[in-house]
Amino acid sequence: MASRAVVLLSGGLDSYTAAAIAKSEGFALCALTIFYGQRHAREVESARSVARALAVERRLELNVDLRGIGGSALTGAIEVPRDRDPCAAADIPATYVPARNTIFLSLALGWAEVLEARDLVIGVNALDYSGYPDCRPEFISAFEALANLATRAGVEGARFHVHTPLIAMSKSDIIRRGLEIGLDYGLTHSCYDPTPGGGPCGRCDSCVLRAKGFREAGARDPLVLR
Amino acid sequence: MASRAVVLLSGGLDSYTAAAIAKSEGFALCALTIFYGQRHAREVESARSVARALAVERRLELNVDLRGIGGSALTGAIEVPRDRDPCAAADIPATYVPARNTIFLSLALGWAEVLEARDLVIGVNALDYSGYPDCRPEFISAFEALANLATRAGVEGARFHVHTPLIAMSKSDIIRRGLEIGLDYGLTHSCYDPTPGGGPCGRCDSCVLRAKGFREAGARDPLVLR
Repeated sequence: MASRAVVLLSGGLDSYTAAAIAKSEGFALCALTIFYGQRHAREVESARSVARALAVERRLELNVDLRGIGGSALTGAIEVPRDRDPCAAADIPATYVPARNTIFLSLALGWAEVLEARDLVIGVNALDYSGYPDCRPEFISAFEALANLATRAGVEGARFHVHTPLIAMSKSDIIRRGLEIGLDYGLTHSCYDPTPGGGPCGRCDSCVLRAKGFREAGARDPLVLR
Repeated sequence: MASRAVVLLSGGLDSYTAAAIAKSEGFALCALTIFYGQRHAREVESARSVARALAVERRLELNVDLRGIGGSALTGAIEVPRDRDPCAAADIPATYVPARNTIFLSLALGWAEVLEARDLVIGVNALDYSGYPDCRPEFISAFEALANLATRAGVEGARFHVHTPLIAMSKSDIIRRGLEIGLDYGLTHSCYDPTPGGGPCGRCDSCVLRAKGFREAGARDPLVLR
């Protein structure tokens, strides 16, 4: 039987590609999707489509409403930055969600322990990204150290591994790799602040990074064609 | 203005005492209570009473339903162990909730960042306890290291500190200390599996540890008197 991996599946391009890479490495995927009160809740529907396309073994959706915590343009009244080059920005942007990946990986860890999985997969990227602290390799290493101390499985000798297959890839590398393995990016959703009809705004950091990635990969984004 | 501390306030005896100690040290308390689908949801009401008694500056309740993850007697169909000596048990008991304190501290960290607090308080105890891995000092240290890497505040130079005032105290020491500073333990709730009327069962590990603590402190538990 294939080893299980718990993959954080948001419905975006990165997590879809990271999950597909883990699947190609032989893992049986257990997909965890977290609704955290984000503006772009539409991505949860994309996560369902992507999970079907990946034929995951299990799927779990959890609600953790981070709007009570606030402090982010993605969960609160702060405006989403637009029409800028996210890679050139010096500061961590307003779309940073305090402790989000720590919270998400913690939930993934709990589920992994129950499933007897030792592998977690997260589509973080520290190259064409927005400077979020919880996307960096040193954060991931610290989480692995914590996971082994935090759990019954760790006390019993298990060693958790957090896979970050995209961490050193550019957005265009990610897209090229995904297209090579036949992914349908038309199923995904990347925009931070979708239009009332649910389509991408084309102007937020996430849309800008996605467009740059497709352009540099010499490919067309099926979402923009639609 | 007093420094803020985010305290995880469950409504139990330990978190009440830990919060009161932090308050006596001069912190303005921001109390975070998490409803996680526990059997003993009644403790959330106790948390409200305790927060009032402590005159906290802010209070936040978050829902994170861990029943979807399962794997614990506190959130699932597994039976709560009864009528045993929890300190003598060799194994981590069925009441262990996978990754619970990692999830709780992550949520506290997110809120702390928004509040510009650098101090977190958790009533973990590694002496008269049930052997949970996420109550040990090495877990707490690993979480502090993670917190500094995970956050915008950490990138900007902040250093988070997780206060564990009870970690090396026996249950009777905790109760003695609380009674000295005038805490009303009648407001708290410790039982893992309350009776239909909401009272303590008297037989779960948490009830057994609490009774032992009051006995050794030479005090009467106001909950049992009622």
